[in-house]
Amino acid sequence: MKKNILVIPGDGIGPEVTTWGKAVLEEIAKGFGHDFSYDEALMGHAAIEATGNPLPDETLEKAKKSDAILFGAVGHAKYDNDPSLKVRPEQGLLKIRKELGLYANLRPILLFDELLNASSIKPAILKGTDILFFRELTGDVYFGEKTRSEDRNTASDLMIYHRYEVERIARKAFEAAMQRRKRLCSVDKANVLESSRLWRETVQQIAKEYPEVQTEHMFIDNAAMQLIKDPKQFDVVLTANLFGDILTDEASQIAGSMGMLASASVGESTGFFEPIHGSAHDITGKNLANPLASILSVSLMLEIGFGLKDEAKIIIDAVDQVLKEGFRTNDIADDTTNPYKVLGTKEMGQLVLK
Amino acid sequence: MKKNILVIPGDGIGPEVTTWGKAVLEEIAKGFGHDFSYDEALMGHAAIEATGNPLPDETLEKAKKSDAILFGAVGHAKYDNDPSLKVRPEQGLLKIRKELGLYANLRPILLFDELLNASSIKPAILKGTDILFFRELTGDVYFGEKTRSEDRNTASDLMIYHRYEVERIARKAFEAAMQRRKRLCSVDKANVLESSRLWRETVQQIAKEYPEVQTEHMFIDNAAMQLIKDPKQFDVVLTANLFGDILTDEASQIAGSMGMLASASVGESTGFFEPIHGSAHDITGKNLANPLASILSVSLMLEIGFGLKDEAKIIIDAVDQVLKEGFRTNDIADDTTNPYKVLGTKEMGQLVLK
Ligand SMILES: CC(C)[C@H](C(=O)O)[C@@H](O)C(=O)O
Ligand SMILES: CC(C)[C@H](C(=O)O)[C@@H](O)C(=O)O
Repeated sequence: MKKNILVIPGDGIGPEVTTWGKAVLEEIAKGFGHDFSYDEALMGHAAIEATGNPLPDETLEKAKKSDAILFGAVGHAKYDNDPSLKVRPEQGLLKIRKELGLYANLRPILLFDELLNASSIKPAILKGTDILFFRELTGDVYFGEKTRSEDRNTASDLMIYHRYEVERIARKAFEAAMQRRKRLCSVDKANVLESSRLWRETVQQIAKEYPEVQTEHMFIDNAAMQLIKDPKQFDVVLTANLFGDILTDEASQIAGSMGMLASASVGESTGFFEPIHGSAHDITGKNLANPLASILSVSLMLEIGFGLKDEAKIIIDAVDQVLKEGFRTNDIADDTTNPYKVLGTKEMGQLVLK
Repeated sequence: MKKNILVIPGDGIGPEVTTWGKAVLEEIAKGFGHDFSYDEALMGHAAIEATGNPLPDETLEKAKKSDAILFGAVGHAKYDNDPSLKVRPEQGLLKIRKELGLYANLRPILLFDELLNASSIKPAILKGTDILFFRELTGDVYFGEKTRSEDRNTASDLMIYHRYEVERIARKAFEAAMQRRKRLCSVDKANVLESSRLWRETVQQIAKEYPEVQTEHMFIDNAAMQLIKDPKQFDVVLTANLFGDILTDEASQIAGSMGMLASASVGESTGFFEPIHGSAHDITGKNLANPLASILSVSLMLEIGFGLKDEAKIIIDAVDQVLKEGFRTNDIADDTTNPYKVLGTKEMGQLVLK
């Protein structure tokens, strides 16, 4: 298979982990005889430093021409500490999501048995959990109009949804549920928000097309609680952009660490694959970052982006194997880990490659 | 002390649990020689059924005249299943919060040692956790303008904050931090939302008035994760209305069950005291609800509303005692609980009274 892949390392630990994602891609291409070519581009703080723009036109053009994008992370403490800065790294990520029409963000909560103890949640509660989140990614309060009054004392963001936006992501989520355990939980705050009432109405409507799927609606506050209390109750979870952002980060604790979770953003054309963790400046450049989320993002690229199931599975098996042998990065080590088996980013990457 | 208390039982399990909150109040009044008088009023679905209005004028008038309000819960499955209904129980709760100027919602995460095992989180992670949430309660996307297009295909809610709204709740939170471990974590989504950037700027400003308090800013997605990963890191947590709704429900898992958490809403005058759990229609009328959150709400009323510290403490001690003796309601029972000590609402209420 011939594919053209754009790598956007981004900021913080992005470059470190993406190196290993790319190395795994190259290894797969070699092993299976695929013809993958690579290009690289800037985004986020790195792009602001180089060009003044968090998403340079060149990056966007390359992105549109590529068959898939492997992304690292964006963000920098400088902007977090100074809310008044106008040009911000995250704008690059939001803009590329919008420009590429990446309206569906899939976040599978993949639970490796070996990591059951790495979580702060009891193993008996976790065991058997298998959740697939569908987070809407190009609407909501993320993209609604923002205002700031002239005296700077009032600020607003518009939380807004159009019916077609809810319909298209809901269909994707129901299709996925049909391939899984046929259960779908849609999360909203319909007891307070009008946009959530539109969301709920629309999901109720689409649900009629999938009578085999057992559909449930849950308020976001309750969902944030139930996810910890009894994660096994969930199969496919469908959420708006903001609620999905919150729930999937929370759910990372189910998988033991954010360093284990990959995500796929799809929609109109090119797919976009990234770890759900952020730029993590506190550990940048220290060989401490967990490269597994980036490596698992590559597995999602192969499966969802290119339909290469065997290739995708080999990656998951390799990760599983390394974990079974007792190797861990810092974030997923626990009391029972042999301290000699706690590895750096590079060593973990190399081990999976093998 | 002479006080005039309005009881609003509301919907679902509201009346069942509030009965015991009130009984405890009466017992305290007797024991300490206070002169508490009581009145009762309707709100939510109960009020809609009786008057067509989720917050009848009569209720609001009584509320304004009272010294404190003991509230149960509002909500009904009928409205949740039909997002198109115009008159909704929750409107009553939102309106009374606004009308009484209850801008600060305090939610202490009180962890009884005996319940360490009732949580889905590992006891070692929980032990020693002591968090006080300050949730802003009269602003944000809860109260911003709502719209629905004429074709009903577009819906929006305005997420909006004014500087003074952030200032007044921030000051309350910093004051509380000064009385506690002098740490404050403010939660927002300043990397995406303009209203969060105003929030963060304002909190940074107020923080200067409290140089002794160690202030931190955290994104909501990260906070939802950290709360499960390492709850002990938090002392006072300051949040906007929506983010606080989500985080405090999630945090209920730290306390073992939502059935254990009480909250105090304060602001311009009369205080409002309520369990954080909802109307829970699935268990209504079955003598299964946990009355402890309502009883602990009374303890907050005595301490925060009336400044009666000893009276408040006696209630917490009584709850602690009952738990130490091994008694549980269904929601806080675990494998190790003696099945003969799993009590109904009434029996648990009576035991605490004694
Ligand atoms: C970096 C930030 C803008 C982003 C988001 O909120 O969507 C991140 O948290 C994510 O989940 O991908
Ligand atoms: C019932 C609902 C409107 C309410 C809220 O969202 O504020 C509840 O969840 C709460 O936390 O008090």
